[in-house]
Amino acid sequence: MRVLVIGAGGVGSAVAAIAARREFFETMVVADYSLARASNAVPADARFTAAEVDASDQSAVEALIAEHRITHVLNAVDPRFVLPIFAAAQAAGVDYLDMAMSLSRPHPTAPYSETGVLLGEEQFAASDAWRDAGRLALVGIGVEPGLSDIFARYAADHLFSEIDEIGIRDGANLVVTDDSGNEIFAPSFSIWTTIEECLNPPVVWEADRGWFTTEPFSEPEIFDFPEGIGPVECVNVEHEEVLLVPRWVKAKRVTFKYGLGAEFIGVLRTLHALGLDKTEPVSVKGVEVSPRDVVAACLPDPATLGDRMSGKTCAGTWVTGTGVDGRPREVYLYHVVDNAWTMAEYGAQAVVWQTAINPVVALELLAAGTWSGNGVLGPEAFDAVPFLDLLTAYGSPWGLREQR
Amino acid sequence: MRVLVIGAGGVGSAVAAIAARREFFETMVVADYSLARASNAVPADARFTAAEVDASDQSAVEALIAEHRITHVLNAVDPRFVLPIFAAAQAAGVDYLDMAMSLSRPHPTAPYSETGVLLGEEQFAASDAWRDAGRLALVGIGVEPGLSDIFARYAADHLFSEIDEIGIRDGANLVVTDDSGNEIFAPSFSIWTTIEECLNPPVVWEADRGWFTTEPFSEPEIFDFPEGIGPVECVNVEHEEVLLVPRWVKAKRVTFKYGLGAEFIGVLRTLHALGLDKTEPVSVKGVEVSPRDVVAACLPDPATLGDRMSGKTCAGTWVTGTGVDGRPREVYLYHVVDNAWTMAEYGAQAVVWQTAINPVVALELLAAGTWSGNGVLGPEAFDAVPFLDLLTAYGSPWGLREQR
Repeated sequence: MRVLVIGAGGVGSAVAAIAARREFFETMVVADYSLARASNAVPADARFTAAEVDASDQSAVEALIAEHRITHVLNAVDPRFVLPIFAAAQAAGVDYLDMAMSLSRPHPTAPYSETGVLLGEEQFAASDAWRDAGRLALVGIGVEPGLSDIFARYAADHLFSEIDEIGIRDGANLVVTDDSGNEIFAPSFSIWTTIEECLNPPVVWEADRGWFTTEPFSEPEIFDFPEGIGPVECVNVEHEEVLLVPRWVKAKRVTFKYGLGAEFIGVLRTLHALGLDKTEPVSVKGVEVSPRDVVAACLPDPATLGDRMSGKTCAGTWVTGTGVDGRPREVYLYHVVDNAWTMAEYGAQAVVWQTAINPVVALELLAAGTWSGNGVLGPEAFDAVPFLDLLTAYGSPWGLREQR
Repeated sequence: MRVLVIGAGGVGSAVAAIAARREFFETMVVADYSLARASNAVPADARFTAAEVDASDQSAVEALIAEHRITHVLNAVDPRFVLPIFAAAQAAGVDYLDMAMSLSRPHPTAPYSETGVLLGEEQFAASDAWRDAGRLALVGIGVEPGLSDIFARYAADHLFSEIDEIGIRDGANLVVTDDSGNEIFAPSFSIWTTIEECLNPPVVWEADRGWFTTEPFSEPEIFDFPEGIGPVECVNVEHEEVLLVPRWVKAKRVTFKYGLGAEFIGVLRTLHALGLDKTEPVSVKGVEVSPRDVVAACLPDPATLGDRMSGKTCAGTWVTGTGVDGRPREVYLYHVVDNAWTMAEYGAQAVVWQTAINPVVALELLAAGTWSGNGVLGPEAFDAVPFLDLLTAYGSPWGLREQR
C-alpha cells in the first residue's frame, strides 16, 4: 500500500505520527500547499516523503499520484477540496478515503425545512462509476463521521433487534489557556469547518419522511458525557452521519447533536449576524478576502493548541430501541480521548488525534483485506468488529454505557 | 467663511445637507478619498464643490486648503485621521473643527486602572502653539462629544451652584429591518469607531483622583431615556467628554455611559474574544487585512440604513449636585432625534444627522463672531446659550428633565 495524505494540518500530521508506528504500508507521501508544513509533519522514517500540492488543482493531485505510484489517497484538507481530490483519485484509478464529504447547498426557497444539495450527494452520484471501475471511495472515515458510524453498525448488528433512534452526540470539557493561565476562546477544531457545520441548516432523517432540515441550533438538550466530562448543551448540526447511517443501518430516526456549549453557540450566532461566516470575498480597502478566512486567521491554529489545552473529548453514538432480548434498550457507545495522553504519546492535541486515528485503522484493515469493497461506501458499510478491535489494539479503547 | 469638510460618509454628507439651508458661509468644499462619494454628498448649490483627498496625507490636505483659500477645516472622517488633518490645518494657519479626538493608547502595564496616552492628548499638547498663532481648534463638536459638553457647561452656568457628577448618557431604540421586515444586526454608527470606543479601557474622572480607567463595560446601569425610548442598559465607555468637561467645568466626577444594550455588548465581547477587533493586519491567504476593517466591510454602511431604520436616538447629560437655590438637584439635559423626521427632512439617518448638525451650528456661531477663541478648545469653553438657541432655531430643540 502506497498512501498519499493530502493536508499537513493538525489531522494530517497526526495521521503521519500514528501511521509511523505501524507496518502495513510501504510508503506515505504527505503533501500540503506549504512544503515546509508537509516537511514538519513527516516523521523520521524512510517510508515518508513530503511534497507540495495545491489541493484545488485536480491535475496536480493526479500528477502526484502518478509520480509516487500511489494506491490510496487520504484527503485530510478541509471539505472545500473534497471534489477535486475525489475526482483526481477517480481519474487516476486509485482508492480514496476522506473524513468529511462534499459540501451541501441549502434549499433555495425553504432552507430550514427542506434539503437542497445533500452533504456527500456529489460523491454518491459517482458511486456506480467507482464500483464499475472496481475501486473504493471510503467516505467519512474520521471520528465523526467515521467511528460514530461504526458504532451505529455495531449496535445494529450486535445490540438491537430494532432501532428507534441513532443520535450522534459529541461533547468535550477541553479548555485552552493563555501564557498567564487565563482561559481563552480557541476552538479545538477548524473554525472554517465548524462554522460550515453549525450554521448550515441541520439535517435530520426519519424513516417516514426522509431527510429534512431545521433552523440552526434546533432541539437543544443537555447530554451527560462519560468519563468525567459531564453535562453539555447539545444542538442539531448538519453532519455526515445523518446522510450515511440510513443508507446501511435500519433505524426510525437519525440525528447529530454537537455539544457546542452556550458560549460557542453565542459566538457562532454573532458571526452569522455580522456576516463574518460568509465565504464569498468582500472588498476591504482594495483587497478581496473571504470573511470566514479572516476569522480563521485571527484564531490560533487548532493544531498548535495541544500544550495549552486540558481536558477530554468524547465522540459517540446514542442508540435507543429494542434489544436482542426483546426488551427496551438505550446505550451510548463512545470514544473518549484525554488531551494529556495524546500530547504525551503523539505530540498531537486530542481532537485532531481522535480524528486521525480512524483512517489509519481503516487503511490497515484495507491493506490486510479484512475490509474490502467497491463504490462510494460509508464506514457503516463494513463489519464494525475488526475495526473496534484494531482501534483498541492501537491503545485507544472504546466504551459502552447502558442507559436503561 | 470658506469651509473644507473632509469625509463624505454619513456625517459629512449630512453636514452638507444641513449647511445648504444656511447663509453664513461663502463656500464649502466636500472632500473624500472617493471623488464619487464626495460628488454624491454635494447639494445642488453653487457654493459647494467636491474634491478628492487622502485624509492620511497631510501635504495633500494642505494643498487643498491652499487651492480653495479655506478658512475652516471640518474633519468628518474616522479618528485615525485626526492628527494629519489637525497638523495640516495648523501648518496652513486656518481654524479647525472635529467631532472625535486623537486616539488614546492604553497604559502599557495597568491598562484597566491607569491611563496611558489620553484621548485628545496629542491635540492639547499643541494648544499653546495654536493660541500663539491666534488660531482656533474647536475639538469634539459633534453631538457626543459636542452637544453633551455644551449641556454640561449650561448646567454649571445656569442650573447648579455645585456639581457632584456629570454623566453623559446615550441611548436609542433604533431598529433596522431587512427587505422582508425582519430585524437585522446593523449598527447605526461606524463600527470601527464603536469598537474603538467600547473596547478601549473606559476612562473616568474624579476631582481627587484625576483620570483613571476601568475594565470594559464596567458599572452597568439601566438608564430611562425620554420621549418613549425607555430603559436601556448603559456601561462605561471611553469617550471624549470625560477628557474635555473637567478642563472647563467644575464637578466631582465625570463619566460617559453608552446605552449599548445587552445584544451589542455581547457582539463586542465576541469580536474581542476572537481578535476581530484588532487593527493590525493579519495575513489571509497571501493578502494583508485589518480584521476590524473586515468587520466594517461585512456590515451595511450606516449612512445607507436610514430607509430601513425606525426609532429615536437620544444624546444627553445627566447632572447631579446642588441647585442654584441651594437644594439637591438632578437633571437630564437631552436631545432626541426621530429617524423618520431626519429622513423626511434631510434624507439622512438619525444618528449621523444628530452628529452633523452641531458643527454646522458651531461654524455659524464662529462666522457671526458669537463664539471666538484661540488655542485647542472644547465646546464647553464657550457660552452654551447661543448654541442651544441656534440649535432650536435650526428646528431641532433640546429638552430638560428634572429627576429630583
